Amino acid sequence: MNSFIYDIPTRVYFGENQLGHLGKELSKYGKRVLMVYGGGSIKSIGLYDKVVAEIKNAGLELFECSGIEPNPRVTSVNRGATICKKEKIDVLLAVGGGSTIDATKFIGAATYYEGDAWDILTRKTRITKSLPIVSILTLSATGSEMDAAGVISNMETKDKIGLMHPALFPRVSFLDPTNTYTVDAYQTACGAADILSHIMEVYFNRNQDLYMLDCVMEGLMKTVIKYTPIALTEPDNYEARANLMWASSWAINGFINGGKRQAWSCHPMEHELSAIYDITHGLGLAILTPRWLEYTLDETTVSKFYQFGVNVFDIDKNAEPMEVAKKSMDLLSDFLFNTLGLQRTFTEIGIDDSNFSIMAEKACGGSVLPGFKPLNQKDIENIFSMCL
Amino acid sequence: MNSFIYDIPTRVYFGENQLGHLGKELSKYGKRVLMVYGGGSIKSIGLYDKVVAEIKNAGLELFECSGIEPNPRVTSVNRGATICKKEKIDVLLAVGGGSTIDATKFIGAATYYEGDAWDILTRKTRITKSLPIVSILTLSATGSEMDAAGVISNMETKDKIGLMHPALFPRVSFLDPTNTYTVDAYQTACGAADILSHIMEVYFNRNQDLYMLDCVMEGLMKTVIKYTPIALTEPDNYEARANLMWASSWAINGFINGGKRQAWSCHPMEHELSAIYDITHGLGLAILTPRWLEYTLDETTVSKFYQFGVNVFDIDKNAEPMEVAKKSMDLLSDFLFNTLGLQRTFTEIGIDDSNFSIMAEKACGGSVLPGFKPLNQKDIENIFSMCL
Repeated sequence: MNSFIYDIPTRVYFGENQLGHLGKELSKYGKRVLMVYGGGSIKSIGLYDKVVAEIKNAGLELFECSGIEPNPRVTSVNRGATICKKEKIDVLLAVGGGSTIDATKFIGAATYYEGDAWDILTRKTRITKSLPIVSILTLSATGSEMDAAGVISNMETKDKIGLMHPALFPRVSFLDPTNTYTVDAYQTACGAADILSHIMEVYFNRNQDLYMLDCVMEGLMKTVIKYTPIALTEPDNYEARANLMWASSWAINGFINGGKRQAWSCHPMEHELSAIYDITHGLGLAILTPRWLEYTLDETTVSKFYQFGVNVFDIDKNAEPMEVAKKSMDLLSDFLFNTLGLQRTFTEIGIDDSNFSIMAEKACGGSVLPGFKPLNQKDIENIFSMCL
Repeated sequence: MNSFIYDIPTRVYFGENQLGHLGKELSKYGKRVLMVYGGGSIKSIGLYDKVVAEIKNAGLELFECSGIEPNPRVTSVNRGATICKKEKIDVLLAVGGGSTIDATKFIGAATYYEGDAWDILTRKTRITKSLPIVSILTLSATGSEMDAAGVISNMETKDKIGLMHPALFPRVSFLDPTNTYTVDAYQTACGAADILSHIMEVYFNRNQDLYMLDCVMEGLMKTVIKYTPIALTEPDNYEARANLMWASSWAINGFINGGKRQAWSCHPMEHELSAIYDITHGLGLAILTPRWLEYTLDETTVSKFYQFGVNVFDIDKNAEPMEVAKKSMDLLSDFLFNTLGLQRTFTEIGIDDSNFSIMAEKACGGSVLPGFKPLNQKDIENIFSMCL
């Protein structure tokens, strides 16, 4: 218990006006840079021009791969890898949110594989190495800027698969909170739900980790709860954006796990949901998380809910544990659906029960999700039904 | 504000039975290993034999530099560097507490310098590089296992100087809580005081950092306060030792600073104290910290004390801020001097006021310590006097 390897090699330039370091960092890996990005938002906020200027000033050669989708597709990964092979790219620069960075990670890995990148996700082939990856983050949510994982969708097979490999850690990430000022209220809220879920998947899990890490997790959750409402009403509040940005990285870079025996629950469920309905990941998590927790709350789990309620929502510690637990769930729902304004049910976003059975089966791999409470297919269908 | 570079390259193997990775990690850097350690404690707990066995099994050649002192001397650094040059050492292995790791860091740097290692500490020459450093920690206190700094004493000049350089980060550190089971109550208590001080020097400082990091710091302080008494009464309590060990690393590896404008206060004062009296660093910090805080408490600083009292010591948040502040200082003193059993005053450890003036002058460099509240020589003498 509590044995683990801590190894986060990503260097982070945090704050405004750090982009002057970009050319130097990219140059460590060569001359030929492939910039990977999504739609036009990095152009409209002026970031594209700044990045291009830094690359040119450093005397580097710029190639581009744009059009990375939210829930990035394996087709985009293959497209990027083809460019890397053809243009002999030395280093990848992801500019965007988690989807762009995730896609960039697998572009980096697929460059060293001759077949379809989907073979990497399906474990038909193993990652051996990746092109070096540098990222410039524009959305606080997935934590991809400081972890070794990514999730890729295949619209043909309706699959969405995640994979982690040490070669996928960004070497360097630029986290400038001002690059998130223009993120709209809905995406800000979904990002916050994503961050919270990353923490809660670890916090509510199979055994106790180091107490110290529970304290850290509670601090991260309090940070999201304190600053998301501020970011919603004052989108250019630096402290709010900075706190959300740094919290997003630390929610999922591996630090908070600390050797905990764990398996995640809401993420596997949500991946099936967005694989079919292509909804925003954070929204799916927001709808699922309170229902999942309500489903798992009983006398054997109540102490963790009590700890959560007292330490995160400041509920009176002298109240009955079950009362604290239930109140904490009310406050969590109130935060997600009233304060953040996210939709509360599948029904509101046009999802009915027609795929529950197949999604539940895939989520548990036809067996059991061994998380906070083990969930079989029937349990997952029940949770889906609670979300209607 | 809040711009910073985060870069902690140390890989940590945390927990029991991780030593099997040692040979592989050392071998990355070459064949010739210099093991640096202090007295016989690593032999009496059986660690020495285990380490030697791993080194031999990996086919590496072992050299030794023992006798590193608490408050390690520059003479030991020079002795180690001479071995490295003569034996063409490839990699350094520190086995011990912060003193041993600190000494090892400067042995690594001094190997690339032809003169007296003291020139490095006095900034007469600059560090260019260091031999790679691997550490096996046996005492939770200084955090040297995961930071780029060290402190070296010169008994001739009665100086104790700290220095930080990125080349001094251990490449790999082994943190096995069971290696601290035999640390006696006094050293455990001094280590806890050291960890607390590292956090409080940042927490009580010149401006607000990211709220998220305040939460993390409060969590680290709560961890020390919760688990040190357990480690004192049950020296082989794994959870207690594990929490203290991981907290010690995160208290000072740079993460909690988060771009905060800061300068430390108690450490410069304590370094003068132990430079002359050779006391245990953590004990000096324990005596100084509450007095320093009492000296700085006023209407302009009370809000931080209030936050500390409510969030760390769980004092009623509805009480008057100044009342909370004072109560938090009482509880801190109670923890350090009653719970941990450390001496409360200079008088108890045989230090009188005869060197206050010279120590205070050196501590502020003849000018001002620009910390939580700026302290000039007179202020520092006042704080020293409060410690009598």
